[in-house]
Amino acid sequence: MTLKLYYAPGACSFVPHSMLELAGATFEPASIKLHKGEQYGDEYKALNPRSQVPVLVDGDEVITQIVAIINYIDAKFPEAGFIPKEPLARARFMEALAWMNNTVHPTFTHIFMPQKFSDNEGAQAEMKRFGVDSYRKLMAELQAMVVRARAAGHDWLGGVHCGPLDAYALTLLRWGTIAGINPEDYPELWAHVQRTAQVPAIAKTMEREKLQLNLYKPA
Amino acid sequence: MTLKLYYAPGACSFVPHSMLELAGATFEPASIKLHKGEQYGDEYKALNPRSQVPVLVDGDEVITQIVAIINYIDAKFPEAGFIPKEPLARARFMEALAWMNNTVHPTFTHIFMPQKFSDNEGAQAEMKRFGVDSYRKLMAELQAMVVRARAAGHDWLGGVHCGPLDAYALTLLRWGTIAGINPEDYPELWAHVQRTAQVPAIAKTMEREKLQLNLYKPA
Ligand SMILES: N[C@@H](CCC(=O)N[C@@H](CS)C(=O)NCC(=O)O)C(=O)O
Ligand SMILES: N[C@@H](CCC(=O)N[C@@H](CS)C(=O)NCC(=O)O)C(=O)O
Repeated sequence: MTLKLYYAPGACSFVPHSMLELAGATFEPASIKLHKGEQYGDEYKALNPRSQVPVLVDGDEVITQIVAIINYIDAKFPEAGFIPKEPLARARFMEALAWMNNTVHPTFTHIFMPQKFSDNEGAQAEMKRFGVDSYRKLMAELQAMVVRARAAGHDWLGGVHCGPLDAYALTLLRWGTIAGINPEDYPELWAHVQRTAQVPAIAKTMEREKLQLNLYKPA
Repeated sequence: MTLKLYYAPGACSFVPHSMLELAGATFEPASIKLHKGEQYGDEYKALNPRSQVPVLVDGDEVITQIVAIINYIDAKFPEAGFIPKEPLARARFMEALAWMNNTVHPTFTHIFMPQKFSDNEGAQAEMKRFGVDSYRKLMAELQAMVVRARAAGHDWLGGVHCGPLDAYALTLLRWGTIAGINPEDYPELWAHVQRTAQVPAIAKTMEREKLQLNLYKPA
């Protein structure tokens, strides 16, 4: 067995994790407990000095960064058709992926790990509050993306196949429910995420990570 | 003329801007004055509702997000050899690009536009201070990347050709000088950036944007 994925339950590593399941890949899933700080241990830091998941190991090669891992898995399992080949469609895929990765994902980090951006407690509380408002706007944008895909006749965000964009959308909305956002506020997005969760490979990934889709608790 | 690039002098749009010059592309450069708020005008928002540069227009198609634009320009000008074709080398390229785009770039945003993350002035000041410290660590990481590339026999961050990773490194170090970081603190990175600035296509891009490489002012 050569492929090994380091993931943390519920983290952004869900995206490559479900991709490997969708591709029917043979791989070794290695769970890292972020809340126990395992990512800061010497062993993990030797693998990824940035102390983050996901990490994909293929033989002797260690690949970090979701965007890079997605490109790599796509090239390794071309029959899964994850990333469109045609340049414009490919650019659209990368546009959505980059935005999720550089805008939506870090906005949640401001809510969940504000200590990454300031060591001042007051500033952290302000960032959290502001971050939740920003996150709501981003969920509306994400929903608009889902609506546009469906209007264009696509069942999934990347086109024909359920893939990394759908798994990322699921992860991001699930994070929103942790931040106190009711997924019912975004009905089309919520429907899309629930449909994604029912795809057998995604359901299997959720089961391995022991994920509940909706963690929203009304105040 | 079908290609049009919306850029702002000194902004991250420098990356696709210099790529188009490196590829010898025929394109229309359209300058947006961010400090005058032109990105929030109705005309620009109709183009990109997120009010950001860069935007690449190819005929009727509007493409946003540096990562997507780089992939698109690479596919359009394959002879420039910007992104390696071999899957592992491609993943390494995307890994570096994604990190610059989702980690280093947003850290500068915390210094330069903290209002994106909090409307509280105290919190903004804290983020700025903390952000400069983080940015120094990231410049050290970026320098290590340059050193590793050279040790592997590569003249440029993406391999054989001067390309988007080098233009991004230049932009990020230049931003550092605005944040009060002395580029001389990172001698190998600084040498690489100065060498990048001398590549004729990059020099031409800097001239159009009227950029000075080092804006550091000793305290
Ligand atoms: N830029 C990285 C971000 C990865 C990331 O944010 N990982 C988080 C989990 S979602 C993490 O490992 N955090 C642990 C920590 O920072 O302590 C990527 O795109 O892969
Ligand atoms: N995620 C975007 C970020 C683009 C971005 O940060 N653009 C900045 C300039 S470096 C901008 O246009 N800022 C104007 C504003 O936010 O008002 C990308 O990767 O293309």
